[in-house]
Amino acid sequence: MRIGVFDSGVGGLTVLQALRRRMPEQDFVYVGDTARVPYGRKPREMVEQFAREIARFLVLQQVSGIVVACNTASAAALPQLASEIPVPVWGVIDPGVEAARRMSPSGRVGIIATAGTIRAGAYQRKLEALGMQVWARACPMFVHVVEEGLAESAEAELLARFYLADRPELEALVLACTHYPLLKNVLRRVLGPEVYLVDSAEVTAEAVGADLGAGTPDGPPSRPGTVVHYVTGDVVAYRHTAHVIGGVDGEIFSLLESTLCAA
Amino acid sequence: MRIGVFDSGVGGLTVLQALRRRMPEQDFVYVGDTARVPYGRKPREMVEQFAREIARFLVLQQVSGIVVACNTASAAALPQLASEIPVPVWGVIDPGVEAARRMSPSGRVGIIATAGTIRAGAYQRKLEALGMQVWARACPMFVHVVEEGLAESAEAELLARFYLADRPELEALVLACTHYPLLKNVLRRVLGPEVYLVDSAEVTAEAVGADLGAGTPDGPPSRPGTVVHYVTGDVVAYRHTAHVIGGVDGEIFSLLESTLCAA
Repeated sequence: MRIGVFDSGVGGLTVLQALRRRMPEQDFVYVGDTARVPYGRKPREMVEQFAREIARFLVLQQVSGIVVACNTASAAALPQLASEIPVPVWGVIDPGVEAARRMSPSGRVGIIATAGTIRAGAYQRKLEALGMQVWARACPMFVHVVEEGLAESAEAELLARFYLADRPELEALVLACTHYPLLKNVLRRVLGPEVYLVDSAEVTAEAVGADLGAGTPDGPPSRPGTVVHYVTGDVVAYRHTAHVIGGVDGEIFSLLESTLCAA
Repeated sequence: MRIGVFDSGVGGLTVLQALRRRMPEQDFVYVGDTARVPYGRKPREMVEQFAREIARFLVLQQVSGIVVACNTASAAALPQLASEIPVPVWGVIDPGVEAARRMSPSGRVGIIATAGTIRAGAYQRKLEALGMQVWARACPMFVHVVEEGLAESAEAELLARFYLADRPELEALVLACTHYPLLKNVLRRVLGPEVYLVDSAEVTAEAVGADLGAGTPDGPPSRPGTVVHYVTGDVVAYRHTAHVIGGVDGEIFSLLESTLCAA
């Protein structure tokens, strides 16, 4: 059975890629709500409703589980969504928090994310509840750097040095935005080798794989899994940006918002 | 009679604002094709077709003239559009080129724009045809800096210093993207007082006002002009970004792409 993955846009494709690396024979359905991106500036109730609509659509596609690959939707819609939907639902926040706890024994952890995620404070509250000292920094230009295909550019490094300039000593840094795994090389250059980078796409895929009892892949898949994409916005723009984020195989279908609302 | 103004997104609002300052009693209809932004990465024929659809929609709204407040659409659709549409059509490129010629007596002119506009080369060709020496630089992060509300930020200045670092001596710099007028303060700081900044929103409004025989405003309007907005994409996101770009009064209507195609 297929697993559903959804995001407000293209960022969740990093989570999809990590899931496919972890479970290479698994089939996936990806929904990118590109007509209504970004979620971070919309009221919580509205985002919760969007998440519900998309989850219902995915259930109609007969998925066996749903990964909410969007920080804003994870914060707004979980755990309510999990109680309403008849299949398992995973978010991206708890796996990131858990990895930060594990990789930061003395509790000095940083988090970088969009302005909306930092403002919402879900990561900070969960990390502080575990007794950690949290440094949080909004990096509003990072999503755009990634979507412009400039993740390895001089612009990316300039901005990374600027955003991380006033960090305290850290053991771990949570990349609390699905776009940020693409910035790992630049962040590594700026931070040096000491700070552990928590890639929320990787740790989410690990959590989903473990829950599903998926064995660690140890060779090429006997039958490579497939992906189907549904997007609410412009398909040309989606294909372009998805390619920049690391490739999109599988068919892309345009999904009118009305289909979602009717689901 | 109302004047129609259209852009692939919100950037054209700087042109709308300049038009309203120039003609404060005039009514306007603005179309932002936010569902299909950015145009810069789409084939020329596709952009030409989008421009035609929107222009026909505006004609149905009984406008007395149309301002193509989008560099990509101006390059792709003019002068064909002007020959097909029964009202005057203005673009943003020729007024910018004309101002650069006027303000750069020895012909050392620079142009900054999106990667798509620089690649398309319409400005460079027109400026070089006038015998000017043109330095052109794509600034792919500038649109995002503006739309994030960071036009006056440290990020904006960092990026401006980076993009302008290898400029030769210039007399004038054409801001060949409708978002860039918001970066004037930062550009002025980086460039110093010697380089004349050609604000294509201002010079386009001046050209339209002159063609329409509008007198220079010399006091508050007897009856302030109105604006109605139609957007093809998400209204919440449009309202937010339009506010960041400098305010949007007037009603905003959601315009399904299908309405455009049927027009």
